Amino acid sequence: MTTNEFLPAAAPVARLIQELHKLPGVGTKTAQRLTYYLVRMPEEEARALAQAIIAVKERIILCSQCQNLTETDPCPICTDPARDQTAICVLEEPLDVLALERTRCYKGLYHVLHGVISPINGIGVEELKIRELLVRLKGDTVQEIVLATNPNLEGEATAMYVHRLVSPLVPRVTRLARGLPVGGDLEYADQVTLTRAFQGRNEM
Amino acid sequence: MTTNEFLPAAAPVARLIQELHKLPGVGTKTAQRLTYYLVRMPEEEARALAQAIIAVKERIILCSQCQNLTETDPCPICTDPARDQTAICVLEEPLDVLALERTRCYKGLYHVLHGVISPINGIGVEELKIRELLVRLKGDTVQEIVLATNPNLEGEATAMYVHRLVSPLVPRVTRLARGLPVGGDLEYADQVTLTRAFQGRNEM
Repeated sequence: MTTNEFLPAAAPVARLIQELHKLPGVGTKTAQRLTYYLVRMPEEEARALAQAIIAVKERIILCSQCQNLTETDPCPICTDPARDQTAICVLEEPLDVLALERTRCYKGLYHVLHGVISPINGIGVEELKIRELLVRLKGDTVQEIVLATNPNLEGEATAMYVHRLVSPLVPRVTRLARGLPVGGDLEYADQVTLTRAFQGRNEM
Repeated sequence: MTTNEFLPAAAPVARLIQELHKLPGVGTKTAQRLTYYLVRMPEEEARALAQAIIAVKERIILCSQCQNLTETDPCPICTDPARDQTAICVLEEPLDVLALERTRCYKGLYHVLHGVISPINGIGVEELKIRELLVRLKGDTVQEIVLATNPNLEGEATAMYVHRLVSPLVPRVTRLARGLPVGGDLEYADQVTLTRAFQGRNEM
C-alpha cells in the first residue's frame, strides 16, 4: 500500500491508515474503517488507546524466571508463595498462560518459550527461551514439567525437543492430553484426533 | 469483558487488550493477538501508531464547506481551482470520497452527510450535514447534485429526502446508476439488481 492510495485523505488520516495496516490481520479496508472510527471516537478514548500502547512498550518486560510478560521482575506468579514451586508448565506464548489460568486447574509455575521450533519461519532452538528453562531446573525443586505446546506439528516437535533436554533433570515430564474436544462430535472429529482419543481411553 | 478476565496478565497488557476490544470488529481474541503483537513490535513502530492516533484527534477537523475530514479549512478539494465548482457529489462517509477519487472520473466537489437517515439507529435528518449542504446551494454556482449514497434501503431513503430538498435549488439532480457490477455474473445477480439493470439498459 502506498501513501498515494490515500492522497485525497488528509495526511494524518492517511498515516493512521498506514500504521494500522501494519498490524496482523488488518487489511486496507479494516485499517480505513478503524481510522474513521478513531476520528469519530471521543478524544479521551482515543488518547486512552494511544497511551495504553505506549504504556505497554514502556512498562512491560520479560520475567527473568518464567519469561512471561510482566511489570515487575520476577513476575507476580513466580513470586506468589501460594503457587506450587515444584511444577513448571511450558508454553509457547504469553496468551497461553492466560488460557490456562482461566481454567483454574493448575497452581504451579510457568515457562514461556516465545515460539516453537519452525525451520520454515527461520525459528531455531536458539530463538526460544529453552536455555532459561534449563537454568531453572538446577537444584531439586522442580518435580514435574508439563509440556503444553500446541497439539500441532511444530508444537509436538518442540515438545519432543524440550522433553529430551529436561527428562534427565526432572523426575516427571508430562504432556497435555490429546483427545476429543468437549462438546465436539465423534462424527466430525478428524482421524488423528480420534486415533489419539482411542489410544488414550480411560477406565470409567 | 471484565478486567478480571485478564488478571494474570500484567496491568498494562490487560488495559491495552481492553482498549483494543472497544474498536469495531475487534473481539477478545483479536484484541489479545494485537496486544501481544504490539508488545513484540519495535518500540518506534508502536510509538508511530500511538502518535498517529493522537495526531488524528489533534489535527483533523471537518471542512466547513464539504464536511469532509481535513487538516485545513476549507479542505484541499474545496480550495482546488482545478475542480469543477458547479457540481457537488453527496456521500455518506469520508471513505466514500476516497473511493470516488480513486476512480478519477469525477472532478467536482463533494459533500459528506456523515451518515444516513436510519430511524432504527436513532439517526434523523438533524444528525446529518444536510443544512450545511443547503447553505452551499445559495447563489447560482451549483448546476448539478450527484446523489451517491449507498444503493441500499437507508441510502435510497436519504437520497430521496435530499432530492426533495435540493431539486428546487439546483437545475439537475442525478443518482449513481444501479445495474450489474462489472465482473459480475447475470446468473448470480439478485432480482432487484437485475430489474434495475434491465430498466436502465442503454443503446449500444
